[in-house]
Amino acid sequence: MTILITGGIVVTSTGPYPADVLVEGETITALFAPGRAPEIADAQVIDATGKYVIPGGIDAHTHMELPFGGTFASDTFDTGTKAAAFGGTTTIIDFAVQRTGENVHEGLAAWHAKADGECHVDYGFHMIIGGVDDESLTAMDALVESEGISSFKLFMAYPGVFYSDDGQILRAMQKARDNGSMIMMHAENGIAIDVLVQQALARGETDPIYHGITRPAELEAEATRRAISLAKVAQDTPLYIVHLSASEALAAVAEARDAGRNVFAETCPQYLYLTLEDQLGAPGFEGAKWVCSTPLRSRHEPHQRDLWRGLRSNDLAIVSTDHCPFCFKDQKELGLGDFSKIPNGIGGVEHRVDLLYQGVVDGQLSLERWVETIATTPARMFGLYPRKGVIAPGSDADIVLYDPAGRTRISVETHHMNMDHSAYEGYEIAGKVDTVISRGTVVVSGGEYHGRKGHGRYLPRGLSTYLV
Amino acid sequence: MTILITGGIVVTSTGPYPADVLVEGETITALFAPGRAPEIADAQVIDATGKYVIPGGIDAHTHMELPFGGTFASDTFDTGTKAAAFGGTTTIIDFAVQRTGENVHEGLAAWHAKADGECHVDYGFHMIIGGVDDESLTAMDALVESEGISSFKLFMAYPGVFYSDDGQILRAMQKARDNGSMIMMHAENGIAIDVLVQQALARGETDPIYHGITRPAELEAEATRRAISLAKVAQDTPLYIVHLSASEALAAVAEARDAGRNVFAETCPQYLYLTLEDQLGAPGFEGAKWVCSTPLRSRHEPHQRDLWRGLRSNDLAIVSTDHCPFCFKDQKELGLGDFSKIPNGIGGVEHRVDLLYQGVVDGQLSLERWVETIATTPARMFGLYPRKGVIAPGSDADIVLYDPAGRTRISVETHHMNMDHSAYEGYEIAGKVDTVISRGTVVVSGGEYHGRKGHGRYLPRGLSTYLV
Amino acid sequence: MTILITGGIVVTSTGPYPADVLVEGETITALFAPGRAPEIADAQVIDATGKYVIPGGIDAHTHMELPFGGTFASDTFDTGTKAAAFGGTTTIIDFAVQRTGENVHEGLAAWHAKADGECHVDYGFHMIIGGVDDESLTAMDALVESEGISSFKLFMAYPGVFYSDDGQILRAMQKARDNGSMIMMHAENGIAIDVLVQQALARGETDPIYHGITRPAELEAEATRRAISLAKVAQDTPLYIVHLSASEALAAVAEARDAGRNVFAETCPQYLYLTLEDQLGAPGFEGAKWVCSTPLRSRHEPHQRDLWRGLRSNDLAIVSTDHCPFCFKDQKELGLGDFSKIPNGIGGVEHRVDLLYQGVVDGQLSLERWVETIATTPARMFGLYPRKGVIAPGSDADIVLYDPAGRTRISVETHHMNMDHSAYEGYEIAGKVDTVISRGTVVVSGGEYHGRKGHGRYLPRGLSTYLV
Amino acid sequence: MTILITGGIVVTSTGPYPADVLVEGETITALFAPGRAPEIADAQVIDATGKYVIPGGIDAHTHMELPFGGTFASDTFDTGTKAAAFGGTTTIIDFAVQRTGENVHEGLAAWHAKADGECHVDYGFHMIIGGVDDESLTAMDALVESEGISSFKLFMAYPGVFYSDDGQILRAMQKARDNGSMIMMHAENGIAIDVLVQQALARGETDPIYHGITRPAELEAEATRRAISLAKVAQDTPLYIVHLSASEALAAVAEARDAGRNVFAETCPQYLYLTLEDQLGAPGFEGAKWVCSTPLRSRHEPHQRDLWRGLRSNDLAIVSTDHCPFCFKDQKELGLGDFSKIPNGIGGVEHRVDLLYQGVVDGQLSLERWVETIATTPARMFGLYPRKGVIAPGSDADIVLYDPAGRTRISVETHHMNMDHSAYEGYEIAGKVDTVISRGTVVVSGGEYHGRKGHGRYLPRGLSTYLV
Ligand SMILES: [Zn+2]
Ligand SMILES: [Zn+2]
Ligand SMILES: [Zn+2]
Ligand SMILES: [Zn+2]
Ligand SMILES: [Zn+2]
Ligand SMILES: [Zn+2]
Ligand SMILES: [Zn+2]
Ligand SMILES: [Zn+2]
Repeated sequence: MTILITGGIVVTSTGPYPADVLVEGETITALFAPGRAPEIADAQVIDATGKYVIPGGIDAHTHMELPFGGTFASDTFDTGTKAAAFGGTTTIIDFAVQRTGENVHEGLAAWHAKADGECHVDYGFHMIIGGVDDESLTAMDALVESEGISSFKLFMAYPGVFYSDDGQILRAMQKARDNGSMIMMHAENGIAIDVLVQQALARGETDPIYHGITRPAELEAEATRRAISLAKVAQDTPLYIVHLSASEALAAVAEARDAGRNVFAETCPQYLYLTLEDQLGAPGFEGAKWVCSTPLRSRHEPHQRDLWRGLRSNDLAIVSTDHCPFCFKDQKELGLGDFSKIPNGIGGVEHRVDLLYQGVVDGQLSLERWVETIATTPARMFGLYPRKGVIAPGSDADIVLYDPAGRTRISVETHHMNMDHSAYEGYEIAGKVDTVISRGTVVVSGGEYHGRKGHGRYLPRGLSTYLV
Repeated sequence: MTILITGGIVVTSTGPYPADVLVEGETITALFAPGRAPEIADAQVIDATGKYVIPGGIDAHTHMELPFGGTFASDTFDTGTKAAAFGGTTTIIDFAVQRTGENVHEGLAAWHAKADGECHVDYGFHMIIGGVDDESLTAMDALVESEGISSFKLFMAYPGVFYSDDGQILRAMQKARDNGSMIMMHAENGIAIDVLVQQALARGETDPIYHGITRPAELEAEATRRAISLAKVAQDTPLYIVHLSASEALAAVAEARDAGRNVFAETCPQYLYLTLEDQLGAPGFEGAKWVCSTPLRSRHEPHQRDLWRGLRSNDLAIVSTDHCPFCFKDQKELGLGDFSKIPNGIGGVEHRVDLLYQGVVDGQLSLERWVETIATTPARMFGLYPRKGVIAPGSDADIVLYDPAGRTRISVETHHMNMDHSAYEGYEIAGKVDTVISRGTVVVSGGEYHGRKGHGRYLPRGLSTYLV
Repeated sequence: MTILITGGIVVTSTGPYPADVLVEGETITALFAPGRAPEIADAQVIDATGKYVIPGGIDAHTHMELPFGGTFASDTFDTGTKAAAFGGTTTIIDFAVQRTGENVHEGLAAWHAKADGECHVDYGFHMIIGGVDDESLTAMDALVESEGISSFKLFMAYPGVFYSDDGQILRAMQKARDNGSMIMMHAENGIAIDVLVQQALARGETDPIYHGITRPAELEAEATRRAISLAKVAQDTPLYIVHLSASEALAAVAEARDAGRNVFAETCPQYLYLTLEDQLGAPGFEGAKWVCSTPLRSRHEPHQRDLWRGLRSNDLAIVSTDHCPFCFKDQKELGLGDFSKIPNGIGGVEHRVDLLYQGVVDGQLSLERWVETIATTPARMFGLYPRKGVIAPGSDADIVLYDPAGRTRISVETHHMNMDHSAYEGYEIAGKVDTVISRGTVVVSGGEYHGRKGHGRYLPRGLSTYLV
Repeated sequence: MTILITGGIVVTSTGPYPADVLVEGETITALFAPGRAPEIADAQVIDATGKYVIPGGIDAHTHMELPFGGTFASDTFDTGTKAAAFGGTTTIIDFAVQRTGENVHEGLAAWHAKADGECHVDYGFHMIIGGVDDESLTAMDALVESEGISSFKLFMAYPGVFYSDDGQILRAMQKARDNGSMIMMHAENGIAIDVLVQQALARGETDPIYHGITRPAELEAEATRRAISLAKVAQDTPLYIVHLSASEALAAVAEARDAGRNVFAETCPQYLYLTLEDQLGAPGFEGAKWVCSTPLRSRHEPHQRDLWRGLRSNDLAIVSTDHCPFCFKDQKELGLGDFSKIPNGIGGVEHRVDLLYQGVVDGQLSLERWVETIATTPARMFGLYPRKGVIAPGSDADIVLYDPAGRTRISVETHHMNMDHSAYEGYEIAGKVDTVISRGTVVVSGGEYHGRKGHGRYLPRGLSTYLV
């Protein structure tokens, strides 16, 4: 199939320019100066006048069907990737999981089994290493060489499930240094946090807001600094801090980057828009909807201002969602009377592109940085570039037409994620996903869905091309 | 005329990809995935196999025919832009000059007169404001609105010629804030430096090396910090530090950038390769060849390491040359017996693209950052994007084919600048400018020159699109 | 005359301990463990039970009779030093003045003439150098060697009166470096401030609050950083920043001190207690009472919190008053309709010891730091130690008995300064100056005055013993 | 017994002054201005002309008879405190030990049993808490209230023996916050270090120098930063970093102190004088003599320069020895072929006062800071002031007469510690301990010993009076 997109403004990470885009089969085969495209027989012509033509979004941090706290994240690869497509995201990188005591290869196989044939858009995997030992270290090499997995996530929290101690972290970092892969870090001092949690519960502080209060910004910052230190000891292993939420942690990342280190960070829309007091502190048990880790931060501190600034200055390189939805009914409710039992996670894979475009409208972000943080840098960071993340000849035809004149209202009534509530209920975005193309196929158009389960393919990834 | 460049690797600031490039007239009209270009009648086909296809270099800091210290920079717009073309630079932004006591519009007219009809490649102007007062402030508005000049350079040194005091700087910055333009700053505390110079001369320290010793890094850092402070008082006026050479100044820029400020800096090849001891301290009067301000820095301090790191981390956004050549004979010799009388300047407009590519070979810089610092960011910073600085449909066909397998030897014997010596005599670069296209015309090919004086046009510039 | 002070708690800068103090003639001749003093015939015994026995306060920054803006500071050396005595201050260091165009020695002689025979407590002089040139630099040596003046104040503001440009500052610093003296700096970028002042007046912003608004903290910080830089270029000349008021300036001092530099700073009570909005912004012209430079800072910024912290951490070494009183009537009123014509200064020499003790009561400062910042460090910093600033055998018997159970109410009704208003009207201090002894003479006791004009002697000072 | 010390220069932490000192019984009862002391019958007069009269040294970090690695530190309380006395140290604070799994009260009792009746000078105890749990936390309260122990040491290294995880550290800090005591921290990331140690041994790197190489400065800095973070989470618990050796750790302390935090640090003479290459890297197994943790640092890095600077600026408050001697024969030799088995420790209790005085001679430290860092601040920091640490009426008569004209040669031939080698063999000090008085008894005079075992008494300590 051949598609010619005409009249639009292509936005790259260095700026916008008008161009027509030719898609043949699954690939972008040509870009033309406006009006310079030849007549092409049988081409479907899409008029993009007044619209931005951007690379399909890449959400580098999702957890479809993640088992957590006795339940599972409520989106399957089917429902979750379909929702992603609706929101202009045409690639996800999910986390295959090895928990403490499990086998890496088996964990990866299990995740392939969950995703295979189910996805609506392309997908890759990072691997969570929850049990660093000789065996899993060996497996890391194998995954890089043979499985298209070039990034490994460790946790400084959740002992007994995902937690690595500093010696394990150091060993995994040394391994990554040797095989060229990237270490992703959940940076919270979970050991200290668990003391605060037990003390809070002992004092009868059981409401959702105490989830946030017992995870102070200082303990995110501490862990972030520690991870950066260990990466230095491991001879400057590339390090990527996930779901950074606190100003103090950002400062640590910025300091490392000023020193020329390969230290990167992502934040998530929830940290840019939602707060400890307004959402997590909602009356009664309502706040459970926004229980995630790292937690929402206080509006009395400058976190959101600083995170937006970090996005502008590239101390924050990427916006992911950490999509990990749980329904309120039966799932979030597991923590009634004990916030520590509330499954951790917020669903948002559908809304990232819109929520960040709102930042453009609000003057928080340039158009260039919007595209860069949601698509181009994720592709470069995680070894998918130039196949993904850019409108260029030869790249996969993952394309979004974004309408700056449209409007999007977020609601559980209209979203496509498998959740019984929305973390952003009632938000109005001054912009709209108009058309979504995944590998040459129009999957969303005019608000209707034309894609199908199984269209999405597994993406073996190469090494990062974003290192300094 | 139509040109099809086939088989090359297009390098953008986010990465390389193979593509064919179609040029029609003065413009890039299409990019094709390899082999996807249609048959085009009459097209000249250039085989770029094995070569990088990059946007023509933009040197944002040159001084053709600058009057200085009783003489003139030895390159005219004719000789200088021809040398630039040989080196893969297809745009220069030179400085029109208002000295203290002169009229801005007259200064600009004088520079137009020098350049008009003389240039081999396209050119723009920044305006030096050497006498900030009501009249020149009014002129700044006029230049932004009607003359295509959107950046103004001030000096914290050279009292009586270019110097602005802090009140004048503040006023010019307020004006720039209002009209959207950029302030460029020569950041050295010239008032304190002049005391050190007089003291050195009084002690009989007259050799060229004392030019560097009397301009300590601390006084560059001080002025840089001061300029950043004044820009803050002027409500975050965009500020661009020229020819940054010292680690301490870089640290000040980095700190401002971490704070999200619109503060930018360039460095120059001389600061990346040459040193106080090795060049400026050459025996006898030889060091005069390398007298420039800011001066070459000591090899016993980590300036070069830090500058390369700054280029990687984007705390240094651009590499320009500050091309300001003076012949040794009769010109540099004006300072025999008194280093303060040596005309300040180094010629290098021809070698910037090569010298920076050497950084890629040495592992100091990625291919992406090479293109970004020599072409893409200059275009964005100074209001020329996307007309210049990028290989994209609709852009001017300023294209360089760069041969990573070639070699370049720098020498006065072979260079094209009007200088009787080379600052980089004997340097060998592991790479070579192969073909240079300026607005659709092949001007350099196979080492031969096909361009002509007068081909280059004046580029009225818009406002910066690089602001955060 | 012999005095034995019994039963009190001697407070030193390392802590309190009970001891009896013997004074013979003008000197402390012995300290005894409680009850260990022998019977001494004819001794006047002062019972200090329940009181702190502290060294007499040293106010290192006063301006008696300073000519400013067409009038004179309203306290003479007679009225001012008597008020000082009432407030527990037994030494002042005032500023002799050389204005631009004047002669240093003549300036000093003029100040000696004003003070000679007039003072109630001992006094020394710093010298203001308002015209750095060969002659005044030579005079600096003479003052250090022969006149007991070891500190020189420069101004980065007030062009035409006191202002030194950066070259002059550098030269004076080099001189100080050579002769061992200290440079004191009024650190505000007066050149930039004057632009803001003219712009404000042109907009009709004439009320006293605009005095503060046109002197932003950033321009104090800038000048502070610049002074620190120049002192570094002058090979680490000791530098003392006067009347530091802004968090950002404090940060610059702290950074220099972390680097081991001889950089010191004082603040004044007005910056610890009063604010831009509450005092300077008082309705109508009332705010004129609090026009001083550096100005009072905004309560919406953390200046006061940071200044107290700086006093605790010794990044602020000293509290002086910058006592420079002007009556509201006829003096402050010179600036009706034009804030820039309001004489700059606040009177407070009488209240410093009390206002800082209030900090002890409020938990802002330890007892040790109270004594250290108001007496011991000033003596060490300015070459008066151990003659002044400490309760030790051999030291001058300048002693204050301070009653922590007393109360002091500050008011124009009761103060002894020659002012028609009080900057601290209505302030209540939880503590009270009980008895004041100056060189062995009880000058204040039971609220009554026993001193006399002419008792105070000129103190030739040695070099600082506070350098690192 | 009554002693009158005449003609000397008393040195306090604010400066020197001439005074005569009267000792009656165990106490200083009076200070006199020179020549003002009355005739005292039966007084022993000691002529201190030309000598400094300083408070007896306080070594706040010693380990007499510490069990470590299957052996015991070779000095008993008898031999160690006698050696201390010879070196001008009249108080030690040793560490009673609870190891993981042991009982706090039993540990304390065991240390009392070791010391009781054995000491030549006064002594106190800190308590090492090697097993933070409910029981030991309760014991902390009891020790503060009833046992005169107000400081508790934790370890971030040595798992299974002393190690506390971050949760345990947080709990102990919260306890200290509540009862007013101080947390002392061995700040090294032992978990990561143990990985490096195992990897080194696996590579056959068994020589003593690898002890240092496997404990990189970055992992001391990391732990230091983490301890500071945890203390902040524990609401600004006072924190004291022991044996700080690395520039990066010092920077972390300085940053906390700039923020006004109650964060303190000590260094030790070995870090000021000895290096990784020169001592730890001595040929063969010789380096074992200098195996201690934190390790000696590289001479190619600026640690020593920075530590001296930290002492000047008070970012380092105290110099202790971490005296923990092991003989080379049979003890250090336990680690032949495996550096990790070498008992950790250096003996130096005898040389601290001299080695720091050498710093005064070398221009590294003022006389005031010498006294402050070796005596006054230790007393204030650890609740012994004003009984110890100062020459003041009422204080214990712990006095050292120090002869700046004497010379001291350090050697195993002449030292009094129970060690078969000296860490400072052959060092020559330009100064000499002349006379040592402990609680009114002359114990060292003219190089001879007049003290006795059992003279030293246990010092129950109060809370720190050094907090900001
Ligand atoms: Zn996580
Ligand atoms: Zn996650
Ligand atoms: Zn310049
Ligand atoms: Zn220039
Ligand atoms: Zn002043
Ligand atoms: Zn003043
Ligand atoms: Zn230790
Ligand atoms: Zn120890």
